Amino acid sequence: MSSGTTADQLTGPVGFSLPLSPSGTSAMLTAPPWHFSGEIVLVDYRVDPAAARRFLPPELDLGPDPGAAAAVFAEWQWCSESGAELTDPEQCQFGEFLILLGCEYRGRPLARCPYAWVDRPVPMMRGWVQGMPKQLGEIHLSRPVRVGRAGSRPDGPGRRDGTVSVRGKRIAELGVRLTGQAEPPFLHTVPLVHTRVFPAWLPGERTVSRLVTSKVADVEFGPVWTGDGELALFDALDGDYASLAPVETGAGYAFAYAESLCHGTELS
Amino acid sequence: MSSGTTADQLTGPVGFSLPLSPSGTSAMLTAPPWHFSGEIVLVDYRVDPAAARRFLPPELDLGPDPGAAAAVFAEWQWCSESGAELTDPEQCQFGEFLILLGCEYRGRPLARCPYAWVDRPVPMMRGWVQGMPKQLGEIHLSRPVRVGRAGSRPDGPGRRDGTVSVRGKRIAELGVRLTGQAEPPFLHTVPLVHTRVFPAWLPGERTVSRLVTSKVADVEFGPVWTGDGELALFDALDGDYASLAPVETGAGYAFAYAESLCHGTELS
Amino acid sequence: MSSGTTADQLTGPVGFSLPLSPSGTSAMLTAPPWHFSGEIVLVDYRVDPAAARRFLPPELDLGPDPGAAAAVFAEWQWCSESGAELTDPEQCQFGEFLILLGCEYRGRPLARCPYAWVDRPVPMMRGWVQGMPKQLGEIHLSRPVRVGRAGSRPDGPGRRDGTVSVRGKRIAELGVRLTGQAEPPFLHTVPLVHTRVFPAWLPGERTVSRLVTSKVADVEFGPVWTGDGELALFDALDGDYASLAPVETGAGYAFAYAESLCHGTELS
Amino acid sequence: MSSGTTADQLTGPVGFSLPLSPSGTSAMLTAPPWHFSGEIVLVDYRVDPAAARRFLPPELDLGPDPGAAAAVFAEWQWCSESGAELTDPEQCQFGEFLILLGCEYRGRPLARCPYAWVDRPVPMMRGWVQGMPKQLGEIHLSRPVRVGRAGSRPDGPGRRDGTVSVRGKRIAELGVRLTGQAEPPFLHTVPLVHTRVFPAWLPGERTVSRLVTSKVADVEFGPVWTGDGELALFDALDGDYASLAPVETGAGYAFAYAESLCHGTELS
Repeated sequence: MSSGTTADQLTGPVGFSLPLSPSGTSAMLTAPPWHFSGEIVLVDYRVDPAAARRFLPPELDLGPDPGAAAAVFAEWQWCSESGAELTDPEQCQFGEFLILLGCEYRGRPLARCPYAWVDRPVPMMRGWVQGMPKQLGEIHLSRPVRVGRAGSRPDGPGRRDGTVSVRGKRIAELGVRLTGQAEPPFLHTVPLVHTRVFPAWLPGERTVSRLVTSKVADVEFGPVWTGDGELALFDALDGDYASLAPVETGAGYAFAYAESLCHGTELS
Repeated sequence: MSSGTTADQLTGPVGFSLPLSPSGTSAMLTAPPWHFSGEIVLVDYRVDPAAARRFLPPELDLGPDPGAAAAVFAEWQWCSESGAELTDPEQCQFGEFLILLGCEYRGRPLARCPYAWVDRPVPMMRGWVQGMPKQLGEIHLSRPVRVGRAGSRPDGPGRRDGTVSVRGKRIAELGVRLTGQAEPPFLHTVPLVHTRVFPAWLPGERTVSRLVTSKVADVEFGPVWTGDGELALFDALDGDYASLAPVETGAGYAFAYAESLCHGTELS
Repeated sequence: MSSGTTADQLTGPVGFSLPLSPSGTSAMLTAPPWHFSGEIVLVDYRVDPAAARRFLPPELDLGPDPGAAAAVFAEWQWCSESGAELTDPEQCQFGEFLILLGCEYRGRPLARCPYAWVDRPVPMMRGWVQGMPKQLGEIHLSRPVRVGRAGSRPDGPGRRDGTVSVRGKRIAELGVRLTGQAEPPFLHTVPLVHTRVFPAWLPGERTVSRLVTSKVADVEFGPVWTGDGELALFDALDGDYASLAPVETGAGYAFAYAESLCHGTELS
Repeated sequence: MSSGTTADQLTGPVGFSLPLSPSGTSAMLTAPPWHFSGEIVLVDYRVDPAAARRFLPPELDLGPDPGAAAAVFAEWQWCSESGAELTDPEQCQFGEFLILLGCEYRGRPLARCPYAWVDRPVPMMRGWVQGMPKQLGEIHLSRPVRVGRAGSRPDGPGRRDGTVSVRGKRIAELGVRLTGQAEPPFLHTVPLVHTRVFPAWLPGERTVSRLVTSKVADVEFGPVWTGDGELALFDALDGDYASLAPVETGAGYAFAYAESLCHGTELS
């Protein structure tokens, strides 16, 4: 079956993803590229390097800064190449929270995402196509405001806060007090490396898994503001998640960010 | 019972609203003033003047522009005097959709809000304290983006769209193509007049209702962008709601807006 | 203004509650009576009597069993006199969690509800009309199943569990291991006494509050199953809520229950 | 990578699905079998046979009853082999709506599911492992009640209604007036045949798709009640979905049902 958008009785229903349908328009996911514009709030922190190591596949190692980690909130708008999603704000918006661990592949710096949550099903499923372990959660992130007293300004000092809950339990809270400008935080500038996983379902089938990096284009950063960061990961899921709690919390950052996500590349 | 925040056994539990509790900290609502900062997208439109008239209490009349109406989306942050809510983005954010009808009281221009929906319970309940008929809905509104392709810029030409659904049914969709700057739209500049309603519950009790306007302070407008508006109200609720569907659609507007809501004033 | 369902220009828009509208059909709430059929899971427990006392208005006292309390989960269907809501399952269903404290008025046994959460806005608002301090939360309760392995049977031994979360934080968890039959638990058989509160909004206005009991009719209990109860209240809200955490946990109960809620009665 | 639950640095993180983690406990999905107990409400209907044909892969044909279809609501509890999920009602419950089309493979009667929605992410993702095109929606279904006036009884005549909405738009409504008993409806008794799809992500990668049937065990039906059915599919998604609207509506059914889902079997 092709991933095209037309079909006849020889090919049957089509689509980039399920659900397949006669014309392909019912597919939950559109084909890449996908364009993203968002507001990011990130806190650098450190985990126990041994805990981080246990989340890495054997092809990767911790690199020169073992235990480097980041907790990242984002509020996104996205669209496909056509831009059609932008007229439906429910469809083009989502919130995200993820954890990044610094790592290397043969000396090349990368980031590994052991956990991620979004608040809409389309980006969740799109994550799994890439190998990004997105699940569904409740994500809330301060928005800068342009007038009045109920928030701080988009480009300037102030405060941003983020919270994430999963199935009715708070799993992380983050805060940043922005005081000055800075360069983009390192872990937000390196490629992500994911493991694509196709769970076994047929008798005797082996789960297929592959390491892939994500190819992005048109990366754009707005001014980066920085200041003291605060971060708490709560022990509300399982011991593996809890093992990535901060042993030290560093700087926080807030910035506008855009990228286009094009395709994956097998690690080699 | 006072609305204070301390109590002893002589007074019992206290609070500005239910739930009353020993120290008053459990109250769902904080006492006013409440400060709001938001992004507004509004479309001017016209309804059948006879339909608008039927939504007005006898003390009000349609004034010199019968049938003038507006459909308004907003994405807010809010806080109490202390600002405490601002560190909890789930608590300080909400979306809103409302309809405004132009009207007058003894020659004084006002706006009447026959319907309003928000996506959080605190602003819903706070609305009822004021007489504003807020119900719960799903509100989605385009956000301007500062970088990348997935949206238009905060202060400039572009497109904004809003959708609102109630109990799984779409009830309104709105769009604006911003092309230039303008003054604030009239119906957003006049006071709102509400009917406070306390439903009868005791045998023989009469429902109490009072006309009140809302006293606001510290009003602030960002630059107002305008252009062609689009609006559809769907017949998914009842005939009364459907009677306010547009007979003509006018200009659309997008702007940042702030106000502080202080107290009500009986109409006289 | 009457609570009737027709109007003309002399009376203006009508309704039992906001929103008022020309024919009254837009009101969020229907007029009582309201009929309820549900499945209840309840755990008897004990709180610090001094903490319970601080939640009682001065007219009430703790009675002969100070510190008696219950944590109650319910999954309801409801309808107005017409039964019209029953064909819309989204409208007629809701989940509820509440706390009851044993108390007395002049020797008459009553129950006081200091906290309650529901998962739909209509029962929340209907609660405030009665003086019941309902807020919005996420409520989940085991359902008995009639076939298969994924649950225990409706009328027999087994296990029931309930969880409630508020704004992304777990605030209570409850479990019952049903082993035999029993009489209905006492706190579920006495009238509730609420404080109706109309928050002040006009300058100089005093908050009105009145003690009322709820008049119910057509009470029906299914067979009551009982066994060991488990209960945890988490310190995720404020100190007042936390002060009602269990100092001792008693028996649990599960049963079908129905009632019709007719009107309030001033306590005298 | 194995799907086991232990790992060391040679294998890296493990799990039946993403997220992979050191001990495998973070995986969103547990390994099969999965046990389901539920309440089903189903309406038999007929679609345009040419429309149904366009949803079938070329290996399948419409069989002796072209255009036979069913719309199915279910309210489930589920658990893994350990039963651990049953003490967390949020985790073990979900609602589902799906469409079935009658078809055949080499004369063997099967059902094809072109569309399905659930209201929790775990069953959604588990569907994709099997090739079942589950998406996220709001599902509501009448519950039988054991006492009182707000519903009809579990085993007897009465009414059941279901509604499903997707991203704020109603897509289907169904009703059944139960009057007598019957055999289970045919389309609920034949195996489902799905297309497993792994969307292409690497350059040059071809989307993999395979036809598989689902192997179930321990099927159990409660008494089946039947009566007149009502069904509407609304044109709120795309033309492909709309092409499966009813041309004729048949009987409705309500029954308790259980099954265990074991693994897939390639069609041959």
